[in-house]
Amino acid sequence: MSQAMVAFETVGLIVKPHLTDITAYLTALAEWFVGRGCRVVGETPSAHLLPPTVTVLPSSDLAAQVGLVVVIGGDGTMIYAARLLGARDVPVLGVNYGYLGYLTEYTPETVYEALERIFAGDIHTDVRMKLEATVERQGEPRLTAQAVNDCVVTKSMLARLVPIECRIGGQFVSIFHADGLIIATPTGSTAYSLSAGGPIVHPTMQAIVITPICPHTLTNRPLVVPDTSEIELRLTTERGPFNVEDVFLTFDGQTGCAVEPEDRVLIRKSASVLKLIEPAGKDYFRLLRDKLKWGNG
Amino acid sequence: MSQAMVAFETVGLIVKPHLTDITAYLTALAEWFVGRGCRVVGETPSAHLLPPTVTVLPSSDLAAQVGLVVVIGGDGTMIYAARLLGARDVPVLGVNYGYLGYLTEYTPETVYEALERIFAGDIHTDVRMKLEATVERQGEPRLTAQAVNDCVVTKSMLARLVPIECRIGGQFVSIFHADGLIIATPTGSTAYSLSAGGPIVHPTMQAIVITPICPHTLTNRPLVVPDTSEIELRLTTERGPFNVEDVFLTFDGQTGCAVEPEDRVLIRKSASVLKLIEPAGKDYFRLLRDKLKWGNG
Amino acid sequence: MSQAMVAFETVGLIVKPHLTDITAYLTALAEWFVGRGCRVVGETPSAHLLPPTVTVLPSSDLAAQVGLVVVIGGDGTMIYAARLLGARDVPVLGVNYGYLGYLTEYTPETVYEALERIFAGDIHTDVRMKLEATVERQGEPRLTAQAVNDCVVTKSMLARLVPIECRIGGQFVSIFHADGLIIATPTGSTAYSLSAGGPIVHPTMQAIVITPICPHTLTNRPLVVPDTSEIELRLTTERGPFNVEDVFLTFDGQTGCAVEPEDRVLIRKSASVLKLIEPAGKDYFRLLRDKLKWGNG
Amino acid sequence: MSQAMVAFETVGLIVKPHLTDITAYLTALAEWFVGRGCRVVGETPSAHLLPPTVTVLPSSDLAAQVGLVVVIGGDGTMIYAARLLGARDVPVLGVNYGYLGYLTEYTPETVYEALERIFAGDIHTDVRMKLEATVERQGEPRLTAQAVNDCVVTKSMLARLVPIECRIGGQFVSIFHADGLIIATPTGSTAYSLSAGGPIVHPTMQAIVITPICPHTLTNRPLVVPDTSEIELRLTTERGPFNVEDVFLTFDGQTGCAVEPEDRVLIRKSASVLKLIEPAGKDYFRLLRDKLKWGNG
Repeated sequence: MSQAMVAFETVGLIVKPHLTDITAYLTALAEWFVGRGCRVVGETPSAHLLPPTVTVLPSSDLAAQVGLVVVIGGDGTMIYAARLLGARDVPVLGVNYGYLGYLTEYTPETVYEALERIFAGDIHTDVRMKLEATVERQGEPRLTAQAVNDCVVTKSMLARLVPIECRIGGQFVSIFHADGLIIATPTGSTAYSLSAGGPIVHPTMQAIVITPICPHTLTNRPLVVPDTSEIELRLTTERGPFNVEDVFLTFDGQTGCAVEPEDRVLIRKSASVLKLIEPAGKDYFRLLRDKLKWGNG
Repeated sequence: MSQAMVAFETVGLIVKPHLTDITAYLTALAEWFVGRGCRVVGETPSAHLLPPTVTVLPSSDLAAQVGLVVVIGGDGTMIYAARLLGARDVPVLGVNYGYLGYLTEYTPETVYEALERIFAGDIHTDVRMKLEATVERQGEPRLTAQAVNDCVVTKSMLARLVPIECRIGGQFVSIFHADGLIIATPTGSTAYSLSAGGPIVHPTMQAIVITPICPHTLTNRPLVVPDTSEIELRLTTERGPFNVEDVFLTFDGQTGCAVEPEDRVLIRKSASVLKLIEPAGKDYFRLLRDKLKWGNG
Repeated sequence: MSQAMVAFETVGLIVKPHLTDITAYLTALAEWFVGRGCRVVGETPSAHLLPPTVTVLPSSDLAAQVGLVVVIGGDGTMIYAARLLGARDVPVLGVNYGYLGYLTEYTPETVYEALERIFAGDIHTDVRMKLEATVERQGEPRLTAQAVNDCVVTKSMLARLVPIECRIGGQFVSIFHADGLIIATPTGSTAYSLSAGGPIVHPTMQAIVITPICPHTLTNRPLVVPDTSEIELRLTTERGPFNVEDVFLTFDGQTGCAVEPEDRVLIRKSASVLKLIEPAGKDYFRLLRDKLKWGNG
Repeated sequence: MSQAMVAFETVGLIVKPHLTDITAYLTALAEWFVGRGCRVVGETPSAHLLPPTVTVLPSSDLAAQVGLVVVIGGDGTMIYAARLLGARDVPVLGVNYGYLGYLTEYTPETVYEALERIFAGDIHTDVRMKLEATVERQGEPRLTAQAVNDCVVTKSMLARLVPIECRIGGQFVSIFHADGLIIATPTGSTAYSLSAGGPIVHPTMQAIVITPICPHTLTNRPLVVPDTSEIELRLTTERGPFNVEDVFLTFDGQTGCAVEPEDRVLIRKSASVLKLIEPAGKDYFRLLRDKLKWGNG
């Protein structure tokens, strides 16, 4: 028995809950794994989509037991899976159901060939950095969370602008007068940061991108800094106090928490990573061209 | 007695409530008007700043009684005053206390010379267009409000992206996949729209600017259309339903309301205007250079 | 005989000289006109493509004799045709051969139906403003030329940056420290100006767009001003003299001239227009969506 | 005698030739070096500014003999000096005369304290990567040159747009339909690339920035890639042939050469570096704030 097969005693299926007409596909996929002696598990939120061959577990139990994860959905589902897995060192394979994704590069059909290779021990992973943000209140850490794409500090719609003081490695960078500030990984550089005017940063770069959202100071431009940077954000009260619920910190646009006036937000590279299983001969630039329609002149 | 003096029987002072050390100035200013036979009125929110010579009224009463308004504060206070005055055809003079404003061009000192001229009948006003937005739910108008700078549809921080369908004069324009959409007047072109990447539109233009906020479709660019355009926005549910509180319509960033899935938002030029009293020989480009620091190379 | 047919005694074909496999199409098109009693003329640069039924004239003679022009090519050919026609009030119909154009909206097939309508007297034209630029040297006008899209002042590749002083209606606007300055019509707003970051301006707007190219002063943003604006550009020598051949003024990117240190360039709306024959029920926003691929999410 | 003093047997002064009223300063500076036993040399282009204590040499001789260089001028002079020194491993200290520079951080006054420290053996250098570009014609290298800020391929003003095919490490990236393409170092990210919309890349990053100039494809955005990237540019003739003199490759905007239709331009990190002597406690972000006026809200 090969080393690879041992690792995949339990395989998890993380499925976008809103998918429809997916059960036949999941049935076939689960059978493929069962046929190779794997136990296949799914999680409660997508239980309604899963065939009987898949054991439904609470999400956290799935994360604790799997040696391989197949994500079926889009980039949002992949990001959800990464958060669920947390610090666990589990390779993840993304099957896009619908639009082509930056992180879900297999189609429902091409995944089988990839799985054959993986079970034969031929597995290539694209290790993506994550960010970790900690909110400190009165010197005490209150919350720590991780992000594959970005940590974003934004004001609520009717809040007055709240200036965001940014320091890197203890050095004062700027007070951003903006709707918000995006702290993105290279992976996240093609997500929200790109919409806000940030550059595309190659996923192999050891970099963090800081992109202001709608900056009032028009010379505040996206900034690319080393991934060793310790970024500290603090909401200044230079323009008067602001209310709780006025400013939020969000992780990958999926979860978040309120930031209060005297809070410090510390953002740095996470110690854990996202291990994406990627197609042989993967071509990042082709993906960019496809997603951004560069070929269309 | 000149015609002008008749018009200014009652003068309103609209003061930014957060100002400090302003009472001496307001006392002198009110005395100037009293000395010319005017009744001087202020409003409740800034009552704590007003001298005894100023009669404090509820805000709506002030709006109903004044023939001239002096705004003391910044552009935000001017915009508040414009909303308070609504459809009333009252000239407004802005005194900036703090930063130079686009709409509050007089200083506490230069205002007296301007008032002398105005009371001598020499009054120039810069007539600025406003926008009017109506939210329709199930075919019924629910809310109508006006804006000097902009009407903005935005999603809340943790909401999924809600595509905004835009039609102009009944013609389909685009479905904007963006954080939001700014519909701005020329006056508003140097406010939020500029931060979001919109152009500077000369205030004498008969134009409306449509600027997407962080568009996912990178080719969605700011659009300038005639001020006769009837703009209709509708939140599509093409990507699934969304929740109440997910999307807001705001007016000048100061007031707003929730927009629900089947609502239509109709935005057009308002029938009423903002009549700004402006300095003789006013130089819009100098204001731009000062505000945007173009001189600094 | 209808009034329309009188007007079209002579019809001109202006054809992109680089087209291939076009003669069969031109033969059929010319026969269509001949069959309606028209004389059909072409011009020397595309003589090699024209069938014998078309009389070849020097370009300026064609311009002087035609009552209707059909342009076969792309937007570049249409712009060439507009320059050739100059101040003449001749309607022009654009047939795109290859890519869809903003100004060449008919296909080789749809043009016949349009011509039927036109010869029946049903002709709609979309009147597009043009710009006129005059270069003055030592107070004397040296050159005047027109543009459908834009007049552009740019530095040559190895020239030092030459600051461009801009005045509008005699008022100083700014000294632009940039690679160049684009002065565009609404028609031109979707051409070079868009690439440089300018807004899309609806073609019915009475507007001129001023877009800096790669401005060093990051707060120098595109500016939209009324079409009555008299724009004056002057190359300052504040950073030392520059050489002839360092700075050029170009018209629609097709023709141009050198600008010398003490020259003044005056740009204003032209007295003449481009009369585009447009499809019934023309939809500008559909054109934008098609050209900019807005539908592709 | 310390090791440091040995190294600085000969000190070079590279002075911006257009400076005026500089001779008194240069006299004092040269005397400072002479007083420490150094031979002081200058170069022909600024000979008219140099005092008699400075030996004037042809530029290439200066480069061959110096152990330390003081640049007096701005960033342009520093870049000139870097090109003059080529592959030589000589520390350079920049004194700005006029505007504050990104690379010339000392003032005429603060330089003495720095020199005291340097001669005491306390020398910190900020090692900046350079780019090296090679133009290949018919498979033969024709020209190789280096750049501190950027290598730029641009079309001439009246040339038709020449599509630029870009490959990285042999992988096809895109065909850029643009006025040009900037390949910049982190140092160059705050120069031309920033004007063209590129991000600010921290100088310690191992990165190359690829920024299109006025891209027609609006989704072509700045790209940050590892400094190990081998970038290959080729001018496609997909839209027909172009002329010699239509496209240029420039180095730091100071020198350049024509690029012909079948040429390949190869750009990679240079084996040599620029060794900037920098102030103790240097603060890159303060420099950014000062240069970009971030403090001005």
